[in-house]
Amino acid sequence: MGFDKITRKEDYSAWYNEIVKNADLAEHSAVKGCMVIKPYGYAIWEGMQQKLDFMFKETGHSNAYFPLLIPKSFLSKEAAHVDGFAKECAVVTHYRLKNDPNGKGVIVDPDAKLEEELIIRPTSETVIWSTYKNWIQSYRDLPILLNQWANVMRWEMRTRLFLRTSEFLWQEGHTAHATKEEALAETVQMLEVYADFAENFLGVPVIKGVKTPNERFAGAEETFCIEGLMQDGKALQMGTSHFLGQNFAKAFDVKFQSKEGKMEYVWASSWGVSTRLVGALIMAHSDDDGLVLPPNIAPIQVVMVPIYKTEEERNAILDYFKSLKKELSSLNIRVKIDDRDTHKPGFKFAEWEYKGVPLRIAVGPRDMQNQTVELARRDTKTKETFNQDGLANYIHGLLPKIQESLYLKAKTFRDERIIEVNTWDEFVHALDHTPGFISAHWDGSPETEQAIKDKTKATIRCIPLENKLEEGKCILTGNKSSQRVLFARAY
Amino acid sequence: MGFDKITRKEDYSAWYNEIVKNADLAEHSAVKGCMVIKPYGYAIWEGMQQKLDFMFKETGHSNAYFPLLIPKSFLSKEAAHVDGFAKECAVVTHYRLKNDPNGKGVIVDPDAKLEEELIIRPTSETVIWSTYKNWIQSYRDLPILLNQWANVMRWEMRTRLFLRTSEFLWQEGHTAHATKEEALAETVQMLEVYADFAENFLGVPVIKGVKTPNERFAGAEETFCIEGLMQDGKALQMGTSHFLGQNFAKAFDVKFQSKEGKMEYVWASSWGVSTRLVGALIMAHSDDDGLVLPPNIAPIQVVMVPIYKTEEERNAILDYFKSLKKELSSLNIRVKIDDRDTHKPGFKFAEWEYKGVPLRIAVGPRDMQNQTVELARRDTKTKETFNQDGLANYIHGLLPKIQESLYLKAKTFRDERIIEVNTWDEFVHALDHTPGFISAHWDGSPETEQAIKDKTKATIRCIPLENKLEEGKCILTGNKSSQRVLFARAY
Repeated sequence: MGFDKITRKEDYSAWYNEIVKNADLAEHSAVKGCMVIKPYGYAIWEGMQQKLDFMFKETGHSNAYFPLLIPKSFLSKEAAHVDGFAKECAVVTHYRLKNDPNGKGVIVDPDAKLEEELIIRPTSETVIWSTYKNWIQSYRDLPILLNQWANVMRWEMRTRLFLRTSEFLWQEGHTAHATKEEALAETVQMLEVYADFAENFLGVPVIKGVKTPNERFAGAEETFCIEGLMQDGKALQMGTSHFLGQNFAKAFDVKFQSKEGKMEYVWASSWGVSTRLVGALIMAHSDDDGLVLPPNIAPIQVVMVPIYKTEEERNAILDYFKSLKKELSSLNIRVKIDDRDTHKPGFKFAEWEYKGVPLRIAVGPRDMQNQTVELARRDTKTKETFNQDGLANYIHGLLPKIQESLYLKAKTFRDERIIEVNTWDEFVHALDHTPGFISAHWDGSPETEQAIKDKTKATIRCIPLENKLEEGKCILTGNKSSQRVLFARAY
Repeated sequence: MGFDKITRKEDYSAWYNEIVKNADLAEHSAVKGCMVIKPYGYAIWEGMQQKLDFMFKETGHSNAYFPLLIPKSFLSKEAAHVDGFAKECAVVTHYRLKNDPNGKGVIVDPDAKLEEELIIRPTSETVIWSTYKNWIQSYRDLPILLNQWANVMRWEMRTRLFLRTSEFLWQEGHTAHATKEEALAETVQMLEVYADFAENFLGVPVIKGVKTPNERFAGAEETFCIEGLMQDGKALQMGTSHFLGQNFAKAFDVKFQSKEGKMEYVWASSWGVSTRLVGALIMAHSDDDGLVLPPNIAPIQVVMVPIYKTEEERNAILDYFKSLKKELSSLNIRVKIDDRDTHKPGFKFAEWEYKGVPLRIAVGPRDMQNQTVELARRDTKTKETFNQDGLANYIHGLLPKIQESLYLKAKTFRDERIIEVNTWDEFVHALDHTPGFISAHWDGSPETEQAIKDKTKATIRCIPLENKLEEGKCILTGNKSSQRVLFARAY
């Protein structure tokens, strides 16, 4: 690759930006804050979509589609929601352009002003619950278990590709239930689906937890989350699942007749993950030589590069590659033969390494004589010579091992970065010297949480679900605390 | 189903609306002109997406994603394009709301006015070609073969669910090529993909043709289309593929260095189909008893309804259904067991018939004794008793036959409705008495085409690709004509 690589140590943030750019994942668009997701980056998102969609359907959900635009007044109906989401959003005020009478392109037609402004959805609870009102009369209409794949928009002043953009792609589940217990069980179930997906598919270990009221979704009674740890020791919220109680049912007057004939408000959950996960994936595994992709999500799992001088050699190697590709494809392995004659093998090696392809097969004339290949692993940077005979089955067994190995590496890193501290000094020291999750006592008050954030930029990422209760004293106030919570600086 | 059915003869338009509503496909949303696509309707769209996505990838395309919002000035860069698309579109003028000082919800923050207004994409040529400019330097960067699945918005005053809505879902392919020949070949190739998909997957026969300049895409040099015929004799444009020449490359200054070292403008194509296809599907096959779905696209291909009095009978029948479902699933057949105990079999029969499920299996206690089932076909309304033994294989063979039969039925209808006329009187008579495609001579002038449209609401749907040249006289002006074209009233 024709550029100097930036290392994580030199500048973590620049390293991330370089990978996004040079691995052809995404770029900034002409519209401030919005990104263009390039084919290689989009293929990663498609892989995530496919797997998640399967998992959602396995747990009984269907897809549907609700409008992009939301009447402004809808946002005001749920008191907490409007504070959280009405601030920075794209507002549609007109529905027509016309030719500039001065001949300079087009201008907004003042006669085409909307009576009520429309908002590009920052999230769809309001428009969906205004619809559910018409769908729900009786307990027989429940539960409703829907998901939508969509674009959403939250106007952001400071953006980073994938991690924080004004427009992003996501899925949002919205479910309606007859009882609190059922809605809560759904909320937790989807958190488990997300954790399973993050750990076993993306190879990113996560901590499952509950958000404090300060960090809760605007309109939720309880927000569950999965939190990952990036290589710079900053946390990244990778998915959230909200128990919405009856808040949106009350805001949109959605009642049902129970089995006993009583009219009751409907219970709700919502849950989502977004293209932000691509950012998490990049930061969790990649190294100073570029992107590292776990096999499960890699758009290309095995790339084959021929090394040749003559046309005859080239043809023989490509013939072998084609037969190997056929064998690998039949094992559901995603393969690319890089037969470009415009680039040298060394260039190709560097490119595919930088793009994080898990396995590279190189074959030259001598390999053809010996019936061998050179097999290189992206994650460990190891190479071995392997017999062509039995190669497909070997690779079939190796890919899950690479997947597991990347997960364990990330988990070891993460586990080493969960640090218990008991005093304010220890807390501040850890934040600066061993950044990661800091397990510390907190007195449970939103004011203390805010004060800690103001002093250190660290927030409470979550109260882990599997927390053990333990008496202690708040690191800031010294007040009594009943359990540790996880602090971190976060994306 | 608890409603009186409207027949096609009584009121075709109301019949369509009833099916969309009562088969749970879609509904109008709180935002004027935008629809909610309900789970059953969305599942049909998902089936289309899946198949098309596969076909696009087989022909070498990748997916990517470009921003929802387009700077207003981009629209003005291509002269014809701005006339076609800048008229009715949603305009974003502000990026923030704030609390109403009078305490009435939220208002648009006047301080958050955008310097340049942004348009919600009506189509993405402009934003994509402004991006391609940075991606293309040399012939080595070509071709670019991309597709995007996205929502788009064209403000419509008169809307009909699926057929014409302000927001709709679609795919848009955008390709860039080094030569005119290659771009033109791509344009035609994608038209063939669409025709193949419409005929062999949706079972809707289509005519492939070229649009006249009046009906051309704003910014294209040539628009190819597939045109279907609905049961009311109106035509429906089901997909278009545009040869854009160098128009957008010139508008956005996208040049490449050719193999010979010369700087040249890039050649382009774009092509798209939308959720409108769901409307076409409904209108092409359905009957007075509701939706009729071809097996290829039916979200549920086989529904099983148990008929029982006792719990014991119910259990025995459901056990049998489960084993049959397993067998059918292993043959990739999509099956639903309707085990609801809140509804009677008669209700279920009517519901699934109305929702167009191709095959229904009903089993009662006597069937269990005889080891038989009752098998009902939605398309022909025929029932037969069939042995449980060998049933799965029989169904596996039957579904493609139903698919074929629906296609042939639609094709016979369509072929009978292509009527040749030679005079103005014949033309007007045919339009009113045997509506369909009318094959007639036209003198080739846009003015004549417009005059015919003004007089009759009929437009030239296309000049068929496989047209034979034939001397004749224009039905309106009597001027010389070299070939017949297809007129119709259209959606």
